[in-house]
Amino acid sequence: MIMRILVDMDGVIADFEGGFLQRWRDQHPDKSYIPIADRRGFYIQAQYPEDYAPDVRAIFQAPGFFRDLPPIPGGLDALRELDALDHEVFICSSPLAHYHNCVLEKYLWVDDQLGPAWIERVVLTRDKTLIHADILIDDRLQIVGREAPTWEHIVYDQPYNRADTGDLKRRLTWETWRAVLLGE
Amino acid sequence: MIMRILVDMDGVIADFEGGFLQRWRDQHPDKSYIPIADRRGFYIQAQYPEDYAPDVRAIFQAPGFFRDLPPIPGGLDALRELDALDHEVFICSSPLAHYHNCVLEKYLWVDDQLGPAWIERVVLTRDKTLIHADILIDDRLQIVGREAPTWEHIVYDQPYNRADTGDLKRRLTWETWRAVLLGE
Repeated sequence: MIMRILVDMDGVIADFEGGFLQRWRDQHPDKSYIPIADRRGFYIQAQYPEDYAPDVRAIFQAPGFFRDLPPIPGGLDALRELDALDHEVFICSSPLAHYHNCVLEKYLWVDDQLGPAWIERVVLTRDKTLIHADILIDDRLQIVGREAPTWEHIVYDQPYNRADTGDLKRRLTWETWRAVLLGE
Repeated sequence: MIMRILVDMDGVIADFEGGFLQRWRDQHPDKSYIPIADRRGFYIQAQYPEDYAPDVRAIFQAPGFFRDLPPIPGGLDALRELDALDHEVFICSSPLAHYHNCVLEKYLWVDDQLGPAWIERVVLTRDKTLIHADILIDDRLQIVGREAPTWEHIVYDQPYNRADTGDLKRRLTWETWRAVLLGE
């Protein structure tokens, strides 16, 4: 059965946390940092010391941050494989409220990493519940919006989204996706 | 009854045709042009002489073209009024395949013209049929995509979209919208 699958970018196919940590350590070698395995909670700046917040935000608001994010291993191949199986794959991302650098760079990233045909599959929206699909793969635990979504939210498993033990959503990574999505 | 209304940008709230024509005449004073009332068909370059096509495209692919588009009179006030009546207004736009300048500039235009709160209402997608809403106001006659849309397409009336006389869709302009949308 053909599925329409929305795939989030940051923390799912683009390594936001890894990109952040590398730049943080390069630009602030004197300051403390949180290894990725120890990250808890969705927002990086909420776990760093409060007086670091402006410097933390400056990292991911800077020109080039989004465009240069490394792909999360296995993600792009999974998207191409789902596409080859005739599933409808869309890349569904919410730009930062400080949108100035991330908006164009998200398109450039998709173009660079997957090619221009995938530009057709990009949907930018701050409200993902409006998008009609079967599945949303997203690393954020709470996806809120105006609509009762048609999709099942499958959590992309990350160290920072494991805290909510009451959460019953299915989870996947790019190592387990075939079992979860295709039942293989 | 609360409606969710998707509003297209180019040719609906942003004056793409007017912005194009002004730049065309400024940059190519020696070349012929088509007055807006005489425009037929959705794509400008399809009505201009074939050998003008690269120059036509260069106008709307240039940096600054989208950001500087004048608002279509009455459109922004209509959006604010619908919002004040608690209707859910989203701005739903398809970037050009040559997305490099238009993507960020569409966000900047909304920010400039309507303010940062409206950035939350921007949805960029090449497939508008995926978006769950009651109404889509769009100047393009044929809106195709992967989904059977939940919305009624109301055509934003323009000289260039009047050709298809078999089309039974409702139409509006920012002079008639209250009668069409609110039955007033």
